Amino acid sequence: MTPKPLNSADASFLSSLEAALPADTLRAADVRYLEEPRGIYKGQPTAVALPRSTQEVATVIRHAGAARVGVVPYGGGTGLVGGQVAQDGAVPLILSMERMNQIRAVHADENVLVADGGAILADIQSAADAQDRLFPLSLASEGSARIGGNLATNAGGTGVLRYGNARDLCLGLEAVLPDGQIWNGLTRLRKNNTGYDLRHLLIGAEGTLGVITGAALKLFPVPAQTGSAMLVVQSPAAALKLLSLARDHLGEMVSAFELIHGQGMRFLAETGLDVRLPFDEAPEWTVLIDVGLSGGLIPADALETLFAAAYEAGLVTDGVIAQNQQQSDDFWRIREMIPEANRRIGSISSHDISVPLSAIPDFITQGSAKIAELGAFRINCFGHVGDGNLHFNVFPMPGKSRADHQNQREEIKYLIHDLVDQMGGSVSAEHGIGRLKVGDLERYGDPAKLSAMRAIKAALDPQGIMNPGAVLRQT
Amino acid sequence: MTPKPLNSADASFLSSLEAALPADTLRAADVRYLEEPRGIYKGQPTAVALPRSTQEVATVIRHAGAARVGVVPYGGGTGLVGGQVAQDGAVPLILSMERMNQIRAVHADENVLVADGGAILADIQSAADAQDRLFPLSLASEGSARIGGNLATNAGGTGVLRYGNARDLCLGLEAVLPDGQIWNGLTRLRKNNTGYDLRHLLIGAEGTLGVITGAALKLFPVPAQTGSAMLVVQSPAAALKLLSLARDHLGEMVSAFELIHGQGMRFLAETGLDVRLPFDEAPEWTVLIDVGLSGGLIPADALETLFAAAYEAGLVTDGVIAQNQQQSDDFWRIREMIPEANRRIGSISSHDISVPLSAIPDFITQGSAKIAELGAFRINCFGHVGDGNLHFNVFPMPGKSRADHQNQREEIKYLIHDLVDQMGGSVSAEHGIGRLKVGDLERYGDPAKLSAMRAIKAALDPQGIMNPGAVLRQT
Repeated sequence: MTPKPLNSADASFLSSLEAALPADTLRAADVRYLEEPRGIYKGQPTAVALPRSTQEVATVIRHAGAARVGVVPYGGGTGLVGGQVAQDGAVPLILSMERMNQIRAVHADENVLVADGGAILADIQSAADAQDRLFPLSLASEGSARIGGNLATNAGGTGVLRYGNARDLCLGLEAVLPDGQIWNGLTRLRKNNTGYDLRHLLIGAEGTLGVITGAALKLFPVPAQTGSAMLVVQSPAAALKLLSLARDHLGEMVSAFELIHGQGMRFLAETGLDVRLPFDEAPEWTVLIDVGLSGGLIPADALETLFAAAYEAGLVTDGVIAQNQQQSDDFWRIREMIPEANRRIGSISSHDISVPLSAIPDFITQGSAKIAELGAFRINCFGHVGDGNLHFNVFPMPGKSRADHQNQREEIKYLIHDLVDQMGGSVSAEHGIGRLKVGDLERYGDPAKLSAMRAIKAALDPQGIMNPGAVLRQT
Repeated sequence: MTPKPLNSADASFLSSLEAALPADTLRAADVRYLEEPRGIYKGQPTAVALPRSTQEVATVIRHAGAARVGVVPYGGGTGLVGGQVAQDGAVPLILSMERMNQIRAVHADENVLVADGGAILADIQSAADAQDRLFPLSLASEGSARIGGNLATNAGGTGVLRYGNARDLCLGLEAVLPDGQIWNGLTRLRKNNTGYDLRHLLIGAEGTLGVITGAALKLFPVPAQTGSAMLVVQSPAAALKLLSLARDHLGEMVSAFELIHGQGMRFLAETGLDVRLPFDEAPEWTVLIDVGLSGGLIPADALETLFAAAYEAGLVTDGVIAQNQQQSDDFWRIREMIPEANRRIGSISSHDISVPLSAIPDFITQGSAKIAELGAFRINCFGHVGDGNLHFNVFPMPGKSRADHQNQREEIKYLIHDLVDQMGGSVSAEHGIGRLKVGDLERYGDPAKLSAMRAIKAALDPQGIMNPGAVLRQT
């Protein structure tokens, strides 16, 4: 059953909604709500609702449902696949969670923190830290991303290897469902087998099945000692063997394991970004490893022992172990500045992919060879190799710009995505589907899963008002 | 829209199904398929299908759908809430996964194992162990429970504190959906954000949304060294502080943290079960702690240091640290025999509950006081205290039997469940809803969640053929 087309958020809808909300809850949406970081989508001029409470969110959703007007939930606006910007179709209302930005409670003795859906990720990290706890979700946009958005997109980042994705860090949710009902699922329980796991259904649904207004999050002990090293490896295959060796030595205490390609380091130099490279010349492949140890172990010693074993095994050829926090921060700045360098160079096509761990070397070899067949390009392949998640991004040669390759963009994308699909991988490892990859989901998604997704969407949001056009094509 | 009533699996349905399947796939169900461990439910005589492949499972489901006949998926038959036995309503077909019991692959370098849905949990543990890997799901019935059932019920057990529940150990699923479509979701990926997480929806749905025919599971490094201790604590509150101290010392290397009450130890003696108690007299409260350490740390030393610090802090009064594997096994035998001792004594009412960690001491005090107001009973309260999950079971005094208290059973149950609910807890922490707790879910479940669950069930299984009457009442 196809739902009727949505209506636009017109003057009459807005004035009726305004009457139902406290003063100053509805505004004209300024331009920041209509843009997104990659500049691919541009939202239509509309209004933004800025609710102060879960009840007000419910009021907004109920009114939108009654008027059959679409609602686009808005967190920090940092999503990379256009999930937060509706460019086409009836004009939706934007629902920003920015006023619901409080840490509701920290239960340090339970290792639980409860926050509003609009709480900024960095604020959550700080609130945990103030009580000597760790909230391990960590990503480049943590200063502006909001936890409701992190959960709606099941954000990844650099802590996944040890602590899991955003969904693994969530014990409970409070949300407004598409029919305007408030679901009070804000449990602090570690075990709760009472029916279908609505939490995991909303997590990763990118706002298409409801709005996350609150979350109970898992905290962890702060590791007694942390340390980092940059180790030069011969190849991606050697990096994977190094990961295996590191886990044999240190078990779950390996906190992060990032692969960096020489191209990324050369981009940093080329774009004038101020980082301290620990090697005279950018190595072809480097691993940035982080360890967080329990009491009684010394990171520099543990990393030294690992390095010696890896050198012995022929996996690493060189390496630098951070001797202090500053040096460790310098290493991480290299990793964190690479996406900025990429932006400055301007990629032709970027791919946030994952493949089974053992397929990584093959993927890089085959992917690079296929791109080379198309012409001369630069490839920056880097990322969370411990999770099988690579950012495989294709750039023009020096002197050329992305615009020069505009007509090759699609060909490059499908070339990489088809390869990923053949290898049993995912064409969206951590960024989600949003609006950018709706076609990819249709192309590569399992048909039974897609039909189940459509049935669930129709069951929970029969009018299709929640984030219309994201994840599933608006019918 | 209420679905039409189901039809029984009558002779005409069975003969048509038989014609669609290879020889010897359909049999009369012998009595073991019609019973369950607690003896509460008794299934109606019917047939059992024993498919050898996912395609055959799909054939069964498609035929059942066409004939509007219910299907009860059957794993190891070890569930404790009657999810595997349909006593009332139209006679369903039983679908046993016992012939699909193979380990399909072990990807040791990726820490992934892929198994049939009918693989026995202990066989999966062994297959991982043979490749020097750990599959950490561990529970009393692991010798007969099958992984599809473990996942369908999101099983818990003793490894949850460190490694999570069954759902946390699953990377991907293969399943037959209620419309007979096969979902090929058997990914080995650690990160995959491509649409709604059907995996987490099927996990914990207890066979009401489909049949799990295969699973990709996470493996872990085997801890270099393991050790155990039994530590005598003053109170449940002291046990929680001890947990916190243990995690400060050992981080995630605390693998298990079980609370044992003196009543459990006295039941072991009373029922003549052969265990080696490390104390002359059963302490009121004991903690069984397990640690799995990475290289370079010695468990007995680490536990000795922890004991000294806990003694210093006034949290423990006595303790025994296992000096070898035999002693460690002896400790665990005490914990694992307690459920058997309970069975031999015969509980009046058993409660598998969880509360927020900090509410545990209050829950035990208030729950015990409320039971005492009803009369003279014995309470055995034990379990996975690190997860906030207690088994709070009420028994008759010596000389009385459970039958003597038949008429108090319901009162006791609601008294405990109401208290759990007031404390923000769960009335089914790890066993699930099955048929036993359908009423509890209706009584305590969040209304918005319940209505979403019903909508999802109707969307994916409009005829209601999958495990009818489990989790949600058959309308």
